[in-house]
Amino acid sequence: MFEFNITAKDKGARTGVFKTPHGEIHTPVFMPCGTKGAVKTLTPDELKSLGCEIILGNTFHLMLRPGAELVSSMGGLHKWISWDRPMLTDSGGFQVFSLSELRKIDDTGVTFKSPIDGSSHFLSPEESIKIQEKLGADVIMAFDECPPATADKDCVRKAVERTHKWAIRSIKAHTRADQALFPIVQGGIYQDLRTESAKFIAGLDCKGIAIGGVAVGETKAEMMQAVETVMPFLPETRPRYLMGVGEPDDLLNAVARGVDMFDCVLPTRLARHGSFWTLEGRFGIDKSEFQKSSEPLQSGCACYTCRHFSKSYLRHLMLEKEILGHRLLTIHNLHFLLDLMRQIRENIARGTLESFSKNFLSTFNARK
Amino acid sequence: MFEFNITAKDKGARTGVFKTPHGEIHTPVFMPCGTKGAVKTLTPDELKSLGCEIILGNTFHLMLRPGAELVSSMGGLHKWISWDRPMLTDSGGFQVFSLSELRKIDDTGVTFKSPIDGSSHFLSPEESIKIQEKLGADVIMAFDECPPATADKDCVRKAVERTHKWAIRSIKAHTRADQALFPIVQGGIYQDLRTESAKFIAGLDCKGIAIGGVAVGETKAEMMQAVETVMPFLPETRPRYLMGVGEPDDLLNAVARGVDMFDCVLPTRLARHGSFWTLEGRFGIDKSEFQKSSEPLQSGCACYTCRHFSKSYLRHLMLEKEILGHRLLTIHNLHFLLDLMRQIRENIARGTLESFSKNFLSTFNARK
Repeated sequence: MFEFNITAKDKGARTGVFKTPHGEIHTPVFMPCGTKGAVKTLTPDELKSLGCEIILGNTFHLMLRPGAELVSSMGGLHKWISWDRPMLTDSGGFQVFSLSELRKIDDTGVTFKSPIDGSSHFLSPEESIKIQEKLGADVIMAFDECPPATADKDCVRKAVERTHKWAIRSIKAHTRADQALFPIVQGGIYQDLRTESAKFIAGLDCKGIAIGGVAVGETKAEMMQAVETVMPFLPETRPRYLMGVGEPDDLLNAVARGVDMFDCVLPTRLARHGSFWTLEGRFGIDKSEFQKSSEPLQSGCACYTCRHFSKSYLRHLMLEKEILGHRLLTIHNLHFLLDLMRQIRENIARGTLESFSKNFLSTFNARK
Repeated sequence: MFEFNITAKDKGARTGVFKTPHGEIHTPVFMPCGTKGAVKTLTPDELKSLGCEIILGNTFHLMLRPGAELVSSMGGLHKWISWDRPMLTDSGGFQVFSLSELRKIDDTGVTFKSPIDGSSHFLSPEESIKIQEKLGADVIMAFDECPPATADKDCVRKAVERTHKWAIRSIKAHTRADQALFPIVQGGIYQDLRTESAKFIAGLDCKGIAIGGVAVGETKAEMMQAVETVMPFLPETRPRYLMGVGEPDDLLNAVARGVDMFDCVLPTRLARHGSFWTLEGRFGIDKSEFQKSSEPLQSGCACYTCRHFSKSYLRHLMLEKEILGHRLLTIHNLHFLLDLMRQIRENIARGTLESFSKNFLSTFNARK
C-alpha cells in the first residue's frame, strides 16, 4: 500500500515517488498546512491547480474542535474536507508541549487544558494514534516530546528518551494498514543526542522517518548541523521528513542534504500579514512604493494572482482588509514554494541542483 | 453603444438584453456589490462561473481609497480589478447622506469628513460624475439626495427637488459616450412625490432609470407601493433599476411589477455572518442541529459549496473563523440569488412567473 522509489540522485539530494492510498507524492515535496481542516483561505480545487499533492492536518486543533469522533462519523478527514489526495496528520505533541502553562507531563502522556474553553484533555502515544486513526490521514506521526531550542542538555536528553519510548508505544498502538506511521528523531542542537536518536529511530519498523525539534528557535546553521548529523543514520530507502521548515533557503539546503518532505505555515501566514516572496526575497505589500505599481508581485510568475492583478490592487485589498487580498497573496506564496520544489526536482534529475541553488540564493538573499 | 431590447413579457414582468460596451446583461439581473473593488472574498473567475454578468463598485469607498485618480492611472476600474464584464458605479450620494454627523449639505453639493481619517471631501453632481468617469464603469448614476424612511414629507419634498436639479447637472456634466447615466427617482413613501419624481425623471435624456430611496427603513409593503406608484410613468423601453434590494421575495415582487435590475450587499453580508438561503428560507450555519449534518446547505444545489461540502464542515469553518467558510457561504448565497434570477427569466419567457413565484414563496416563507 506504501512504496518509496528513488528516481534520481544528485550528490546528497534525491527525487522519489512515495505511493500512498490516496495517490503518489513526488519528492522532495512541500506540504501546505490545513491546520483546522482547511489550508487557510483556499479550496481543494485551488490547491490542486497549484500542483499541491499532499496537505497536513493538525491533530491538536481537530481533536479539540470538532473532535475526532465527529470527523470519523463524517467518513474521515479526506471526505469531510473534500480532499481526495494524500494527507498527513501530526501527533499533537508539538502543540501540547508549547502550552507551557496549561499542561502536566509524565511518562504516561500529557494532560492539558484546552486554550479554547479550559476543558481538560489527555494525549498519549495511544491516544494520539487513536485520534489519528479516526482522522484517517495517509501518513500519521508518532507522539513525541519536542523541547524548545532554549532547553538545556539534560532536558533534551530526557525528551529524547521519552520520545523513543513513546515511538515504540505509538507503533504498538497503530492498527490501520492504510496509514504509514513515521517516528520522529529528536535531540535538539546536541550532536551526540541527535546521533543516538537517529540510530534508535532508524531501527524501528516504519515507512518513513521525521526529524523533529527543528525550527523551534535554533539558528539556521544549527538546524542544518542537526540535519547533517542525523542523515548518515537514516535509511536511504525511506522518505525523510523535516518538520516545520518552509523558508526557501532552508528547503534548498535541506534537500541538498537528503530531505524529502517539508511542511510549514509560513506561506499562508506571510500572506495573512501582507508579505510575499519573489526571486529577490521577501517583501511587504504595504510599502508605499507599490501604491502605483501596475506590475505583478513577480514578473513572469504563472500564478493566478500574478496573471491578473497588480501590486497596486493587491496593496489596496490588503490595506482595506479585503479577504480577496489575503487569498491572492496565499495563492502566490504557495505557488512560489510549490514551484520552487518543482524546479528542485527537475534540477536533481538533471544533476544541476548545486548550481541552481547557488543562483537562486544569490538573488533571493541579495538584499540581506 | 447601449441598447435595451425586451425579449419576453409576462404581465408586468419582462425579460430583456441590455447591451453595454463590456457585454450583454440579461435582465432581470441581480448585481453583486464589489464595494471597494472586490465582491467580498471572491475572484473575477469565481463570479463568472457563478454566471454573474455585472457587478457594482462604490464611488464613495473608491474615491476615499485608493482615489479615482489612482484607479484611472491604472487603466480604469475594469482593468485594475481584472473584471472585463459590465460594471455599474453608484454616485456616492447614498453613503454621504448616511454620514449624518460628518456632512454639510447645500445646493452646490455635500462637504463631508472621511470616516477613515477625518480628511475633508466634497461631492456634487459634477464631482461625482467626474469621479465615475475616471472609474469608467459602463453604467453610472446621477448624484441624488436619499433621505431615510423616517424623514417627514417636507424633508422628502426638498430631497426630490434637489435630486431633480442634481440629475440635470449630472447629465450636463457627463461626457463619456461609453457610459450610460441613470438618473434616480426619489419621493420616499409619499405617492404624490413618487409620481412627481417619476414623471420628471422619465422626461430626462437617459438610457435607464433608477428607483432610489427604497430599502432605507420602510416596510416591504411600502417599498412595493413605491414601485407600483412610479412604474406607469417609467418608459417601457428603458431598463429600470431598483436600488439596494436583494431579498428573494422582494426580487420576485419587484420583477412582477416591471423592475429589470437589482443590487444588494445581502448575499455577501449574510455569508459573513454565517447565514445562508435555501428554498425553505434563511438559516444560520451555527445552529447545533447542523453539527452532525452530512447534508449540503441545499439538497440538489449545483453550487461548488453544495457539491463538495456538508453543513457539518461549513459550520466548523465558520465557528473557527476560517475564511474558507465565509467564501463558501458567499458562493452559495450568490449562486442562490443568481440562479433565482435565471429561473425568473425562464418563467417570464414561458409566461409562468406568477405560479413560479407563488410556489417559491410558499416554501421560502413557510417558517415565518
